[in-house]
Amino acid sequence: MMTSKLEYDGRLEKVRERMISQGLSALLVFDPANLYYLTGYNAWSFYTPQLLFVPIEGDLVFAAREMDARGTFRTAWLTQESVIGYPENYVHRPDRHPFEWVGARLRDRGLVRPGSRVGLELDAHFFSPRAYLSLVSTLPEWEFIDSLDLVNWVRVVKSPGEIDLMRAAGAVVTGAMQTAIGNAKVGVRQCDVAAQISHSQYAGTPEFGGDYPAIVPMMPTGVDANIPHLTWTKRELADDEAVVIEIAGVHQRYHTPLARTIILGRPPAKLQSLAGAAGEGMEAVLESVRTDIPACDLARAWNREIAKYGLEKASRIGYSIGIGYPPDWGERTVSLRVEDETVLQENMTFHIICGMWMDDYGYEVSEPIRVTADGVELFANVPRGLIGKEVYS
Amino acid sequence: MMTSKLEYDGRLEKVRERMISQGLSALLVFDPANLYYLTGYNAWSFYTPQLLFVPIEGDLVFAAREMDARGTFRTAWLTQESVIGYPENYVHRPDRHPFEWVGARLRDRGLVRPGSRVGLELDAHFFSPRAYLSLVSTLPEWEFIDSLDLVNWVRVVKSPGEIDLMRAAGAVVTGAMQTAIGNAKVGVRQCDVAAQISHSQYAGTPEFGGDYPAIVPMMPTGVDANIPHLTWTKRELADDEAVVIEIAGVHQRYHTPLARTIILGRPPAKLQSLAGAAGEGMEAVLESVRTDIPACDLARAWNREIAKYGLEKASRIGYSIGIGYPPDWGERTVSLRVEDETVLQENMTFHIICGMWMDDYGYEVSEPIRVTADGVELFANVPRGLIGKEVYS
Repeated sequence: MMTSKLEYDGRLEKVRERMISQGLSALLVFDPANLYYLTGYNAWSFYTPQLLFVPIEGDLVFAAREMDARGTFRTAWLTQESVIGYPENYVHRPDRHPFEWVGARLRDRGLVRPGSRVGLELDAHFFSPRAYLSLVSTLPEWEFIDSLDLVNWVRVVKSPGEIDLMRAAGAVVTGAMQTAIGNAKVGVRQCDVAAQISHSQYAGTPEFGGDYPAIVPMMPTGVDANIPHLTWTKRELADDEAVVIEIAGVHQRYHTPLARTIILGRPPAKLQSLAGAAGEGMEAVLESVRTDIPACDLARAWNREIAKYGLEKASRIGYSIGIGYPPDWGERTVSLRVEDETVLQENMTFHIICGMWMDDYGYEVSEPIRVTADGVELFANVPRGLIGKEVYS
Repeated sequence: MMTSKLEYDGRLEKVRERMISQGLSALLVFDPANLYYLTGYNAWSFYTPQLLFVPIEGDLVFAAREMDARGTFRTAWLTQESVIGYPENYVHRPDRHPFEWVGARLRDRGLVRPGSRVGLELDAHFFSPRAYLSLVSTLPEWEFIDSLDLVNWVRVVKSPGEIDLMRAAGAVVTGAMQTAIGNAKVGVRQCDVAAQISHSQYAGTPEFGGDYPAIVPMMPTGVDANIPHLTWTKRELADDEAVVIEIAGVHQRYHTPLARTIILGRPPAKLQSLAGAAGEGMEAVLESVRTDIPACDLARAWNREIAKYGLEKASRIGYSIGIGYPPDWGERTVSLRVEDETVLQENMTFHIICGMWMDDYGYEVSEPIRVTADGVELFANVPRGLIGKEVYS
């Protein structure tokens, strides 16, 4: 499942169409997921500044730290001539920033035309204010404007090849969640459960190798189960505790996240009741998925269903997924909530997450899904409902 | 090994001393490692905007997304009154930024005094240009200036309690590297080796639970071994391949990174020769470590030694370590290179990394260390040298 140069060309064409409609003559890309989408570049090098220059026509230019730049061709289709590496003595220096050097090289190459409107990913992870201010002062010829997550929006509708990668990720997360369910037992340390999950995520399946997820296993437990983003401790799991597990399967950077809630013993009535309501809500959402409806319709279907149980939920019930790098596997585009009017199209992919965080307990159930021509495809295959010695739903 | 309120008070005092010397009346902290250092707050919530307001006197205020804010007390010493949660409908919205809401709440609390000089971590991960521009426009009363990694610089010298946590991390990484060495065999998929390493990192030891590292296992292999930041594929390890393993042990967010190079078969003469030179260089550095010398002296000791073999190295040979969150386990302060004049003090901690990346092969050996009153303490305990069926050095 190698991504073809033809597919990369198509992605770049879509990005350039959007650049034209947003009046941009060039775009600077910082988000590692967007870099990977456009070039295939894949290394843990995003902790030092790097950028991809995308002109409205002509060759792309990728700039990174020297030790990373010279190996770009190992993962990206870019030629070595398209890659510039800034000197190692620009790394972590208070008195100089790598983009001063990179800006000068872009100017040397004749790429800095006065008056160009250049889009910046102003909300990208790994693009710091200092890097931004460095670009502004180094390249006064350019007018910088927010690209408004331009590439992220191109990524929202997946190609058939991308869907295949997400199906592989779905097989990985199915295995990893089964591992979690099999290992979460009274007396086992939380860190040992996390270790088994991680093993399963990295190893993947015999057919599909696993990859690292953008987020480590989240597993808020017991009285902490009402806090969604806690990781783990070395405390042993106790009788009658609930453990919320939220993890992703990953294949070639494509993510399919999945959440389930495990009860170690007898479920309290209030948790069982919450699980029942959330399960009905999830069913209502899945039954509503179709093309040509606005994203908010899914949130409304959820709200209607859980209102029958006297419940409401302040946070969105899902978001667009695909390529992910730490710290997030969401694409920062479509959110499934009442304020989002984005019209659903075939091959959009979402993490539908029905998380309910109450005063001293919580419940999560989720599904990674694809919008199909006539409904919905589930990427994972794990029973829903509160999971204990039996599945309560 | 719980961090006491007394220790947190001491850290805050040191931060405020630096604030006075830098002429700051308040500081805004975004780096998750700095948040953890000052408050103990620890959750995977840093993918949405959050900040800690540190006034020169008076209470701290922490602002995060509502679903995260209400559980802050689970890990931080902060009282619930010190925490404000912005509404969920501010998450990932192109038309509003959470810091507009947070800024207004700070103003409501009477904390926004005109003319205040407020330090910002302009180079922190997870502080985007959009977040920066939102603060600038929301709080025009404040004069914002770069804090120049103020809190990071306070973190450079560790307390005895922090050293204990790093010793625990050292035990974890010793086990994880032994796992890597035991599992890297011809015919095993790279992803399966990574899975075993990760299992060992998360599980930790029976005494010390493991925690997630800021960086996943890096394991550039074969002809890719000259590229330091590659992760893994599902390709099987082959006869006579070299595998560079760079990983960290983590305990309560404190990191001790460690690199070794494994040869699966007979080492080529050039690799064995490079390993010998790097090993001598490492010995020379370790013998040079002492208090009251500038950091650059360690780089010079390295340069002198490897020059005997006709080698040179453009990149630094180490950096300060301690608390880490993705994407980096370095503290972004002291670098061991000829340009860095920082004077070494007792209980500074470094990752000394002797990585040599040649045309089509590479070699890494590293040690996480503490500067002691009279020399050096090693946190890990794994034989150095090129590791094969025997250790070549």
